[in-house]
Amino acid sequence: MAGQAHGVKGEAEARPHVVIVGGGFGGIQAAKGLAGSRVRVTLVDRRNHHVFQPLLYQVATAALNPANIASPIRRILRGVGNVEVLLGEVESVDVAGKVLRLDDGEIRYDYLILATGATHSYFGHDGWAADAPGLKSIEDALEIRRRVLLAFEAAELEADPRRRREWTTFVVVGGGPTGVELAGALAEIARHDLVHEFHKFNPARSRVILLEAGPRVLPTYTEDLSAKAKTQLEGLGVDVRVDTKVIGVEADGVTTEQGAIAARTVLWGAGVQGSPLARTLGVPLDRSGRVVVGPDLTIPGAPEVFVIGDLAAVEQGGKPVPGVAPAAMQGGKYAAKAILATLAGRRRKPFRYVDKGSLATIGRAAAVGEIGKLHLSGFVAWAAWCLIHVFFLIDFRSRVLVMLEWGWLYLFHDRGSRLITGPVEDILERNPEPGRPRPAPVQVEG
Amino acid sequence: MAGQAHGVKGEAEARPHVVIVGGGFGGIQAAKGLAGSRVRVTLVDRRNHHVFQPLLYQVATAALNPANIASPIRRILRGVGNVEVLLGEVESVDVAGKVLRLDDGEIRYDYLILATGATHSYFGHDGWAADAPGLKSIEDALEIRRRVLLAFEAAELEADPRRRREWTTFVVVGGGPTGVELAGALAEIARHDLVHEFHKFNPARSRVILLEAGPRVLPTYTEDLSAKAKTQLEGLGVDVRVDTKVIGVEADGVTTEQGAIAARTVLWGAGVQGSPLARTLGVPLDRSGRVVVGPDLTIPGAPEVFVIGDLAAVEQGGKPVPGVAPAAMQGGKYAAKAILATLAGRRRKPFRYVDKGSLATIGRAAAVGEIGKLHLSGFVAWAAWCLIHVFFLIDFRSRVLVMLEWGWLYLFHDRGSRLITGPVEDILERNPEPGRPRPAPVQVEG
Repeated sequence: MAGQAHGVKGEAEARPHVVIVGGGFGGIQAAKGLAGSRVRVTLVDRRNHHVFQPLLYQVATAALNPANIASPIRRILRGVGNVEVLLGEVESVDVAGKVLRLDDGEIRYDYLILATGATHSYFGHDGWAADAPGLKSIEDALEIRRRVLLAFEAAELEADPRRRREWTTFVVVGGGPTGVELAGALAEIARHDLVHEFHKFNPARSRVILLEAGPRVLPTYTEDLSAKAKTQLEGLGVDVRVDTKVIGVEADGVTTEQGAIAARTVLWGAGVQGSPLARTLGVPLDRSGRVVVGPDLTIPGAPEVFVIGDLAAVEQGGKPVPGVAPAAMQGGKYAAKAILATLAGRRRKPFRYVDKGSLATIGRAAAVGEIGKLHLSGFVAWAAWCLIHVFFLIDFRSRVLVMLEWGWLYLFHDRGSRLITGPVEDILERNPEPGRPRPAPVQVEG
Repeated sequence: MAGQAHGVKGEAEARPHVVIVGGGFGGIQAAKGLAGSRVRVTLVDRRNHHVFQPLLYQVATAALNPANIASPIRRILRGVGNVEVLLGEVESVDVAGKVLRLDDGEIRYDYLILATGATHSYFGHDGWAADAPGLKSIEDALEIRRRVLLAFEAAELEADPRRRREWTTFVVVGGGPTGVELAGALAEIARHDLVHEFHKFNPARSRVILLEAGPRVLPTYTEDLSAKAKTQLEGLGVDVRVDTKVIGVEADGVTTEQGAIAARTVLWGAGVQGSPLARTLGVPLDRSGRVVVGPDLTIPGAPEVFVIGDLAAVEQGGKPVPGVAPAAMQGGKYAAKAILATLAGRRRKPFRYVDKGSLATIGRAAAVGEIGKLHLSGFVAWAAWCLIHVFFLIDFRSRVLVMLEWGWLYLFHDRGSRLITGPVEDILERNPEPGRPRPAPVQVEG
């Protein structure tokens, strides 16, 4: 074994070493683009799995299992001889030294592809995070699922009507795609999926409030589609409030410029910022902490350092390339090609993002989308969304299982993954007084 | 709402109140047995879901999703008008006062069915728990899955061959059904399911060691089946060591009476004890902390307090009724009938456990079983095991999904749920020195 490893090493040493940080859409496509080529590739991620982020809200709302939308990066790249996968957290990049510093070691590179994506932004109010979790990872999704399901359990335990109302009020902050998806799914859970399961209250009378600081939901879509999305959300029972800026978040509700809303469950879909690793590059970032890259997606002064996907700030025709999965995938493919071109002595062509359209789902048979000049909404948009999202799932098994889960949910309003795992006490007892729930039987029996 | 609740309350007050603690096999059957009767039922569990425990080891070994084998108790009992489900932790029973004390309230009962099951026993060495997790809940299963998958990741990061050997050595303590299942599944993961995914070592050369203090594995089975189980385990590559008592467990291995075994992953399947709630009853317990009940499964001096399932110590024909799912289910049905008989003024017949046989699975196409006088092993026993376990899953959707997952695993050796969620650092850095793994590229590149 040792001898063999050394043999491989000797041969491998001669090859340029490409390090990819991040196993999301961009990182995986970059690795695939370099598979079988004459470079040696190391993909580093702090998690062992790739996540199909567009369906993450479905894990958060108990429709899908984590494993339905996540796949081990190792398995995705299994059998690719020149790509190694390492579990590790990169803490900083030494651009001058061409070295990545990990928490317990370092990795040298000849080419670097940074694809660590974005994280939540609370616009300077990081203290809000504890009371308004965002949605970026499987862990985030499970935390949101736990809070949502526990809120209904707490409502069943609560005898005081006012406090019960707080448990059955859900506030989603941010009217972008994530906020819209979460609000729509929450409304469906409350209105349809929990019927006949609670004795002390009617879950269908829960409130779901979507707060958007700007004048319309889905602001990156055209105005007609924003209006349709709002109508469809309201049809599902969501209370959509635009021009409503949140100025405070507490365990028992949010404060907006228009007043306070008492709610025990607040979810955050309002802002994103570039992953903190960007700050260690020593190059200019935009206001959202994303790395401003050139036409070949590299940073100023270091043509061997690529930044792709949500972490990159790149403009095309005067408009920013959006932080969506297709842009990340195209960036990954581009970076792989650009590296191979440089190694072959060819010039790099500039990156060109091809916008194939966008779709945002709202709920059962409700969605909006624009594909070229075509604007879709309602059932047609929703069916297109389902098809495209199933098709792009990373493996065939996931596709089959997700279709089954969706079919079952559509037919029976029965969510497949309504498990509360992890601690129960911290939510139920978050505010010992006055909001602390007590078992209802005490009240009933006096 | 309030008025309606009061109306229901007035009527309900007149009915006897049966409280069931625990939503496992016994508790669910008791609730179903009382559904639609003239009693009012409250089922209390500290988790929101029923777990199909016989398949828990498959979640621990990444073959199934948590949601495949767990179902919200509320959903199972949905629409049953006289059964309420409450999320709560019962801390003690006041038998004289007929009151349950919860962490933040109390519940009065007329009849009580205690079905809280068993927990791990470390035979007085509770300090071993941190380094040798047991398997009783979904959380336990996810923790074991995390440790097993992280061990392979750590091996890939480790340059020192001796330490890598420690990461690829798995010790399972206890040769009962759980230990045998875990050891068999671990051997399959290492030998088949991770092929071509690691570059620095060959997972197939991992060691799985099963330690049993007594003279044979599966000691509740007949000697011929124990021998067959041992042979089948060895065929899968498990190192089975009987007559080997563990006298110490540390983060870097176990110590037996025969010597030390260096291993970074130790799993515990050795012993169980009754849930701590039993101690609050003030009645005699057996050596394993189980409640010694009479022929009608009630405790001495309190014919309204039933104890069923793994928490009950009951003999039949001089032999203890085993702590298995069928016995718990029969106990739950019996308690429901006994309460209804008493309310109807009829005498209770004594509980009678009907042994329909038992099956233990070992691995792919490997199992043993005894059904009456019939002894099965190998493929036939395994096929019977699969059929019976799929059939008894709580809902139809789970049956379909589990069959799909199993079919896929059988055909492609591809485990569906290989996600590492939760903290990564604590395992990888559990022993900073000398066992701390470092990213291999540092070593490779000097």
